[in-house]
Amino acid sequence: MSNPDRIPRDRDNDHTREMASQRATFVAEMTGTKLDTVASYTIDPAVTSGNIENFIGTAQVPIGIAGPLTMVGEHARGDFYIPMATTEGTLVASYSRGMRVISECGGAKATVVKHSMQRAPVFMFDNALEARDFGQWLRENLDSIRGVVKTSVEVPRLIEIEQYPVANMLYTRFCYTTGDAAGQNMTGKATLFACEWIKANHPLKPQYLLSGNIDTDKKHSMMNMIQTRGKRVIAEFTLKRDVAKELLRVDTASLYRYRQIASVGMAQAGSSYSGAHSANGITAMFIATGQDVANVSESHAGLNYMELLDNGDLYWSVTLPAMICAAYGGGTGLPTQRECLEMMDCYGTGKADKLAEIIAAVVLAGDVSLSSAILAHEWVSSHEKMGRNR
Amino acid sequence: MSNPDRIPRDRDNDHTREMASQRATFVAEMTGTKLDTVASYTIDPAVTSGNIENFIGTAQVPIGIAGPLTMVGEHARGDFYIPMATTEGTLVASYSRGMRVISECGGAKATVVKHSMQRAPVFMFDNALEARDFGQWLRENLDSIRGVVKTSVEVPRLIEIEQYPVANMLYTRFCYTTGDAAGQNMTGKATLFACEWIKANHPLKPQYLLSGNIDTDKKHSMMNMIQTRGKRVIAEFTLKRDVAKELLRVDTASLYRYRQIASVGMAQAGSSYSGAHSANGITAMFIATGQDVANVSESHAGLNYMELLDNGDLYWSVTLPAMICAAYGGGTGLPTQRECLEMMDCYGTGKADKLAEIIAAVVLAGDVSLSSAILAHEWVSSHEKMGRNR
Amino acid sequence: MSNPDRIPRDRDNDHTREMASQRATFVAEMTGTKLDTVASYTIDPAVTSGNIENFIGTAQVPIGIAGPLTMVGEHARGDFYIPMATTEGTLVASYSRGMRVISECGGAKATVVKHSMQRAPVFMFDNALEARDFGQWLRENLDSIRGVVKTSVEVPRLIEIEQYPVANMLYTRFCYTTGDAAGQNMTGKATLFACEWIKANHPLKPQYLLSGNIDTDKKHSMMNMIQTRGKRVIAEFTLKRDVAKELLRVDTASLYRYRQIASVGMAQAGSSYSGAHSANGITAMFIATGQDVANVSESHAGLNYMELLDNGDLYWSVTLPAMICAAYGGGTGLPTQRECLEMMDCYGTGKADKLAEIIAAVVLAGDVSLSSAILAHEWVSSHEKMGRNR
Amino acid sequence: MSNPDRIPRDRDNDHTREMASQRATFVAEMTGTKLDTVASYTIDPAVTSGNIENFIGTAQVPIGIAGPLTMVGEHARGDFYIPMATTEGTLVASYSRGMRVISECGGAKATVVKHSMQRAPVFMFDNALEARDFGQWLRENLDSIRGVVKTSVEVPRLIEIEQYPVANMLYTRFCYTTGDAAGQNMTGKATLFACEWIKANHPLKPQYLLSGNIDTDKKHSMMNMIQTRGKRVIAEFTLKRDVAKELLRVDTASLYRYRQIASVGMAQAGSSYSGAHSANGITAMFIATGQDVANVSESHAGLNYMELLDNGDLYWSVTLPAMICAAYGGGTGLPTQRECLEMMDCYGTGKADKLAEIIAAVVLAGDVSLSSAILAHEWVSSHEKMGRNR
Repeated sequence: MSNPDRIPRDRDNDHTREMASQRATFVAEMTGTKLDTVASYTIDPAVTSGNIENFIGTAQVPIGIAGPLTMVGEHARGDFYIPMATTEGTLVASYSRGMRVISECGGAKATVVKHSMQRAPVFMFDNALEARDFGQWLRENLDSIRGVVKTSVEVPRLIEIEQYPVANMLYTRFCYTTGDAAGQNMTGKATLFACEWIKANHPLKPQYLLSGNIDTDKKHSMMNMIQTRGKRVIAEFTLKRDVAKELLRVDTASLYRYRQIASVGMAQAGSSYSGAHSANGITAMFIATGQDVANVSESHAGLNYMELLDNGDLYWSVTLPAMICAAYGGGTGLPTQRECLEMMDCYGTGKADKLAEIIAAVVLAGDVSLSSAILAHEWVSSHEKMGRNR
Repeated sequence: MSNPDRIPRDRDNDHTREMASQRATFVAEMTGTKLDTVASYTIDPAVTSGNIENFIGTAQVPIGIAGPLTMVGEHARGDFYIPMATTEGTLVASYSRGMRVISECGGAKATVVKHSMQRAPVFMFDNALEARDFGQWLRENLDSIRGVVKTSVEVPRLIEIEQYPVANMLYTRFCYTTGDAAGQNMTGKATLFACEWIKANHPLKPQYLLSGNIDTDKKHSMMNMIQTRGKRVIAEFTLKRDVAKELLRVDTASLYRYRQIASVGMAQAGSSYSGAHSANGITAMFIATGQDVANVSESHAGLNYMELLDNGDLYWSVTLPAMICAAYGGGTGLPTQRECLEMMDCYGTGKADKLAEIIAAVVLAGDVSLSSAILAHEWVSSHEKMGRNR
Repeated sequence: MSNPDRIPRDRDNDHTREMASQRATFVAEMTGTKLDTVASYTIDPAVTSGNIENFIGTAQVPIGIAGPLTMVGEHARGDFYIPMATTEGTLVASYSRGMRVISECGGAKATVVKHSMQRAPVFMFDNALEARDFGQWLRENLDSIRGVVKTSVEVPRLIEIEQYPVANMLYTRFCYTTGDAAGQNMTGKATLFACEWIKANHPLKPQYLLSGNIDTDKKHSMMNMIQTRGKRVIAEFTLKRDVAKELLRVDTASLYRYRQIASVGMAQAGSSYSGAHSANGITAMFIATGQDVANVSESHAGLNYMELLDNGDLYWSVTLPAMICAAYGGGTGLPTQRECLEMMDCYGTGKADKLAEIIAAVVLAGDVSLSSAILAHEWVSSHEKMGRNR
Repeated sequence: MSNPDRIPRDRDNDHTREMASQRATFVAEMTGTKLDTVASYTIDPAVTSGNIENFIGTAQVPIGIAGPLTMVGEHARGDFYIPMATTEGTLVASYSRGMRVISECGGAKATVVKHSMQRAPVFMFDNALEARDFGQWLRENLDSIRGVVKTSVEVPRLIEIEQYPVANMLYTRFCYTTGDAAGQNMTGKATLFACEWIKANHPLKPQYLLSGNIDTDKKHSMMNMIQTRGKRVIAEFTLKRDVAKELLRVDTASLYRYRQIASVGMAQAGSSYSGAHSANGITAMFIATGQDVANVSESHAGLNYMELLDNGDLYWSVTLPAMICAAYGGGTGLPTQRECLEMMDCYGTGKADKLAEIIAAVVLAGDVSLSSAILAHEWVSSHEKMGRNR
């Protein structure tokens, strides 16, 4: 390590307590800050290989449990306790309240209605006509391209190639199902194989870039809202008028009226979620369960919809068009993360849709609680009671 | 605890190892999952009081360090080592590469250009004319309302009240500066005081709700993009053509041309960030430093802008209009989180702008690295080399 | 005219029947199409000077009258007959139906709640810090800049300069009131004077471009939706349950429920107007009254909002944040156009807000009629009965 | 006519000079405004039957001709003179300048890359699962539904049914090709037939509404931008550096740099078109040629894209994803309107794509001229010279 300010690194075996300790010492020397608690982790650094570089320790993010949340979903059925990792006081309590309300009303239905994970290469041509013709060729060769994907990578299955011609280019979205993984990396690899095959087999040998920026990886977009990214999942329940009065201190008619006001607010602001808040619950669950938390930027988007029934009960739903979550791969296998998945029986093969259903229902619970608190003028007072500044 | 499926809770002293353990046992009984590693935390549960309810342990999220990142910002000056908490392999390495490039080019400038944190009450009237007149009254009474805020809460200072009349309502945004805190809770309290004063003093005693959903708390929005939320921060540097060739294996002219393609992709997709990816770096730093990670939904929005200079060097910048970060309050004081702030000298009074500058420069570093990898066709191969599936 | 395919033009006196005829002959020669009806205009070409170049005749767009529409606005009060120029069968009849409903319910209120017409120069600097400092200087020199505007142009009054710093630039919106004119040209001129003064007086002599593309002239934008362009105008009325049943064959409760469905559709689609249709009525009135019809791209944006009252009546409103209309200037003084303004007493000084109120109420009428037709399953059948293909 | 303020109408034969005159008299009586010039039309009222109700005369909108515009499109080839109906001085001259530039550079390519006109019924169910299952049934029965459409209406061909599940509903877009017509009415009728068949044949007999508001008829939307509405058309040409210098007094490198600034402006503002202005040219051509001018709200959306070539020439393109134009039907057959189509050989069977190509090239010409004027600081001065206020 000739350069004195270069972070120490062992090319052969870097995910060790020793190397972590060497780096912590290095940081202490360079910055004057001792990393006592960061270094006070209780997991084996070896398990983080493939998840992190330059490991120095762990962030210990408090986990609270919320629930039970009763679910009558397609995959998630029964009572669930929800692990939420957050540092925002009141959050777990508020979600718990919403879960109790949902459970008292018979539980939440939840349904994954579409799967689609993308990579989005852009192909470049001399003019729009060539790009259009190439698009036609892509449609005609879809089966071959699917075959290329199948023989190159194991999990992802190419469903379709969406086309968006602009100028002399064809922007595309290669859409895959990815089993129980989130799948950004595996679809990246699959799409690279597909593109190389295309380049080799199309008469024009078209130039391409693996991302034309319409994936739209780690960014909210109307593209995702419309075309789905990851899973499109819907959670719904019917809030009984009596339960609302007793547990939430609001009338369902007021909630319904507030929906109009909040929807107009959403449209006025041009915002990505029409309900009260989705990101809080999603983030807390993503951290706890080892998801790629940066996907909150995409996954928090969605639509809130209600109907006031004739008997005064309130049908309430959230639709999340870009829920990116995994039951396998990424950070899901790390020790604390895997335990959090396991406590919901959401770790491993065949569990990703179940997890998506639960997350959607948690978002619904959060909206139930916060919307009611705003209406009942309890929002600030509950934060005063439970938050940091009491 | 009469209800057997209710989570155990001690009303008087709940943030203890004992109660955490009781709850972990409860979870094990209810779900069959033993929380061995979750419970294997090394922080004192007492410190999480005000940050979490129903504490059962911690998520241990691996932290890697990236850098050094040279900065020549207004507040952040010198070389920084950046703590990033993530489970996505390659991320730390990729950001580190970008930081090295920036540092080789003389470092990143960064500037906070606006501060504005909001609460957004909506006031309801009989018709639009009444709402408009009320808006006029608000303008005339701004100083009084500022006074009410000043006497009710300590930190937040009311800057202005933006008005958005719709139908028979006046949607507002009460805009504050909040010192070194993110400030959502303190501005909530301040706005409640202000609204109660308004209700008491305006002749119509107008009904209001504390959120008309244009805050737009925990959601991306064009409102934030245009009006700012938290801090509007800009990072910029000039990429030398030679450095690009050597370290990134791309030509600056190609990067500039790719900017056009990526910008068109952004517009075609209607996405919230025009560069390659902002959420990855922001999220990793937010988790490490105890920020409210759900704010990634808002803070990842932004604009990427380049100019190709006559000498072939490339001016490169990111503008983040909704950077919500704190040097104090929330989760910033928790043990591992505080250490991560301290290693950048970003904990406590007067440090929030410095932190925002660093985060913006980190985002810039991430875009430098990923954009170049896409162009150099190294994107997939680097993930293969360093990611989980190698 | 050396070039044989150049359109004939008389530099001194071009707006004459003779020159129009010469050009029509030229077109006939070049294209084989005789312009018999285009040339069969009944206005004096001289009056079109300043409104068109290369005049060859007129488009004769059929005008139908709709109404009466009862208004109880701030400026528009009484019964109005509305001139609508369109070629879409059913349109006038459908709007007329909506107007009748509104009138039967006591008429429409309408209120202009904000005035703001913009030009949007962008100023360029070496870095973001310089741009921020320049922004501060702009705020400090606002009065001087207002003075420059006042002494350079007659009508427009500079209200404020909005600032949007991005990268090393300061995007601005110079916001004006423009009396009874739409004002795009006069504010362009005023802003040019202001910019030249700024360039001369600021120490850095900053480079600028008169449009940074955030005006956003002749384009829909969230910027307009949020910040207003032209006039922000709201129309509202209360639909009586009995009137709805009798004249529209729908129940107000169904209309209210449909509002939820349509609002969700708007958010799902990312569209610019949340009601049924605003562009139809606005366009027909814009053509009839000599407005700059291209502004339909901006003016059609808006929000539809309802409340179902306890007695079953339905409060219904439209909010149009970018209504650009004039009672003077542009095409308003042309013969047929001026007559159409005069029949609503909307031509000339002090009438622009009145016109905006009427247009907003017409949009409301159109939504009343079309929304009800969709619900009553009469949408297609009415087109069959009255449209072109009967 | 019992009600004295009811507009006179003859149920049997209303499109006559006599009835128009009766109505003009009525208006004069009710409003005090004589409609001398409105009534001074030269077309036969009978031809407006199906295009208007309550005909009272015509708006005479000045038409200027621009051009010649050289085109080397797929359908439009050769030199075209363009009829533009507008009241905005400078507009025709500015577009003409752009056309001359394009022609000097060899003409504009233009390509229609997708056809898709929609109606968008929403189907309602008890829960999301039922809605998802219904979606599957729709896919399985697509051929039958296509057959229903084919036997019910003549022109439209059902291509696909896009599905957007939200809550307990399935929002759909029925996508058609519509030959040379715009097709909103015929697809409305076709979709009604399809929906009635679906309702009769699906086991649940699902309730539906013919519009879930995602059509998104007469409104700009990201849905249209992404999925196309009407025609997606691209125009492109390469601006020679010398021509730019001579005719536009700008350097291509400056234009390219301005593209970045304008693109960032577009993203900052959240606007619907990234170039300088599309609505001006589209509106002027729509009025002249009898299009449904309200569609400007949709058709003006688009993307501007450039590449600076090594020799200093500039590839320049516009992509318009929602161009709704017809060569037949609607107002295209009216006298002046048909002549304007005929002078471009764009009236009747097989001409709609040709017309779309020309309109896109006109938009390109407008951007060439205005962008250059902004850069050359000639924007205001040209308006001063040619506009109304000289």
